[in-house]
Amino acid sequence: MRRHHLPTPSLLLDEARLRRNIARLDERLRAPGVALRPHCKTCKSMDVARLCMVSPQGPITVSTLAEAEYFAEHGVTDICYAVGVTPGKLARALALRQRGIRLSLLLDSAESARQLAAFARERKHIFDLLLEIDCDGHRSGLRPDDPELTETAALLAGAGQNLMGVLTHAGSAYDLPNPGPEVFAALAEQERGAAVRAAQRLREAGHACPVVSVGSTPTAFYGENFTGVSEVRAGVYMFQDLVMAGLGVCRPEDIALSVLCTVIGRRKDSGNLVVDAGWMALSRDTGLPGRFAREGYGLVCDADGKPLPGLRVAETNQEHGIIAACEGLCPPLPVGTLLRVLPVHACATAAAFDAYHVCRGQEITAVWPRCRGW
Amino acid sequence: MRRHHLPTPSLLLDEARLRRNIARLDERLRAPGVALRPHCKTCKSMDVARLCMVSPQGPITVSTLAEAEYFAEHGVTDICYAVGVTPGKLARALALRQRGIRLSLLLDSAESARQLAAFARERKHIFDLLLEIDCDGHRSGLRPDDPELTETAALLAGAGQNLMGVLTHAGSAYDLPNPGPEVFAALAEQERGAAVRAAQRLREAGHACPVVSVGSTPTAFYGENFTGVSEVRAGVYMFQDLVMAGLGVCRPEDIALSVLCTVIGRRKDSGNLVVDAGWMALSRDTGLPGRFAREGYGLVCDADGKPLPGLRVAETNQEHGIIAACEGLCPPLPVGTLLRVLPVHACATAAAFDAYHVCRGQEITAVWPRCRGW
Repeated sequence: MRRHHLPTPSLLLDEARLRRNIARLDERLRAPGVALRPHCKTCKSMDVARLCMVSPQGPITVSTLAEAEYFAEHGVTDICYAVGVTPGKLARALALRQRGIRLSLLLDSAESARQLAAFARERKHIFDLLLEIDCDGHRSGLRPDDPELTETAALLAGAGQNLMGVLTHAGSAYDLPNPGPEVFAALAEQERGAAVRAAQRLREAGHACPVVSVGSTPTAFYGENFTGVSEVRAGVYMFQDLVMAGLGVCRPEDIALSVLCTVIGRRKDSGNLVVDAGWMALSRDTGLPGRFAREGYGLVCDADGKPLPGLRVAETNQEHGIIAACEGLCPPLPVGTLLRVLPVHACATAAAFDAYHVCRGQEITAVWPRCRGW
Repeated sequence: MRRHHLPTPSLLLDEARLRRNIARLDERLRAPGVALRPHCKTCKSMDVARLCMVSPQGPITVSTLAEAEYFAEHGVTDICYAVGVTPGKLARALALRQRGIRLSLLLDSAESARQLAAFARERKHIFDLLLEIDCDGHRSGLRPDDPELTETAALLAGAGQNLMGVLTHAGSAYDLPNPGPEVFAALAEQERGAAVRAAQRLREAGHACPVVSVGSTPTAFYGENFTGVSEVRAGVYMFQDLVMAGLGVCRPEDIALSVLCTVIGRRKDSGNLVVDAGWMALSRDTGLPGRFAREGYGLVCDADGKPLPGLRVAETNQEHGIIAACEGLCPPLPVGTLLRVLPVHACATAAAFDAYHVCRGQEITAVWPRCRGW
């Protein structure tokens, strides 16, 4: 199939860029010799995951049980569910484990550990568990020096559960006031330090703690020291996006994902173009306030993916995108013209679609489905 | 099934509120005697549409061909596709029409009309067409006095196409600086005036123009004069949301849609709660800049839907929502506590889910699927 036969909006995945992005992080992590556990919350696709994993069985990271079930269905057996688990999710997690999936679960409080221990006791199951560490005040987790860390570990060990180690995520990497290689390197060291410190405390308390899991796309690319780290997680690196380009982690020409859309009209007063990709296709994500105002809801390119300088998706309604010129007028493109929009946030844009249309130039070489839901 | 057996996040639809919202607009439009063509881009569900339509065959409005195909599959035969059509979409539109679906298409330029006429000539088909009118500079359409209006109509008539009339949408209703009943009534009159004026010009030029279609949820509720209007379109009125509540079009207790989620943790420093509904479930839509900052990504309620005053979803990551108190600390809810979040923008929140869980109190009485994609 050729690109111009696709309905619009469609989600394009440039295979050459995808492979280059994957190779870049693989190479980056080869020198320190640290393992990669790709986060498949961005791609939600077995076809993409196959290109990222070291083996057809994984390991991978996921953010929902639906992803865990989908990847397990496709042969992945080593899965880290990296969102704090709650009692209501344990029956599904157990079902996966009883199918032979090494699904590890995340906790960040003694309260959660007690709830899990009660469930495990009742169902006579030993879960593989990680304690979430807060390395930067971003979201969740225990600080490495929090007494609750060892208390929680003792509670789990006392309940006969398998505490595998610690996990942290420097989520503040996406929101740094002055991003740059040195800043990411410093944050990576902070991320590593917190995880290693927490693991050390747990080992001092008698827990083996073999897993020390860290990661975010910026810290994975710019971290200089992975001593004591057993694995790195990253997700958006596969596709990259304008947030990552804005942070300097990639170039716009590295972005593998784009939304193919069609010009459906032009406004006479402003000269603005109207396209058939609104927020339903592009998402409402405009990145960090202020920082990405230049691109609005996406960077406008021609159908071949070449940026059209000075154009931005200035506004979106459900199925309408308004393309405006940063200065002057938009080129008067005919109705029916195909354009491509590079996503602000790849995870959010991809989530609007059920499949990737994999492209090499104008050729659509494959359709790769995505999983979805919870 | 009971509510607490649902996985989280899940999308709840309060049937009593849904029926009340639908009845409210039906009653509102009864006095002027104007027909309603509900916009099903919000619900994307035949089960919801059945409650809104005057007959099982429609009429309805849609925003994608995928919606048109879905509703046609379920017996709806009168469908207005209210987004400007492009040549690439005509083959699918034709396929629907050849199945006996009265699908009307929208145009807003002589250029689009020429493209459609060429396709229609080649395929020997007469399409039902509407001309889009710009009543408020919101997005697309021709101004009622634009010479291109009659030029386009003449072009379509000359090509033997069926010009049914005009369609306009006062999209600026969602973005008024000082919203209120009088302001919406004035905008409704402006919307009506533009459509009626355009229809009059077309009639003077010899086109019958039986359809004069207007609408948005605010103008449908507050319009006082529907003279010359043949139908009103509205979509979000079925569910309502915090944008509509912020505009004064509904009360928060009218909002029929909510996301059921679970507390997965608490932050020790801030006391913030972490829930398993992030932007993937709630969407990144925070409404109009500045206006809805109070609720962030949604209004937090207990599991029964009673608002918890002073709480807001302050931040979202993909699968994490951070609930913060506007003042002081969040209540220290246990991990595992179920909460409900009322959506900022119902269309965007619903789009994250494949189905509604219809609820009456704690009882889940039905699962209503949604269509999706393009």
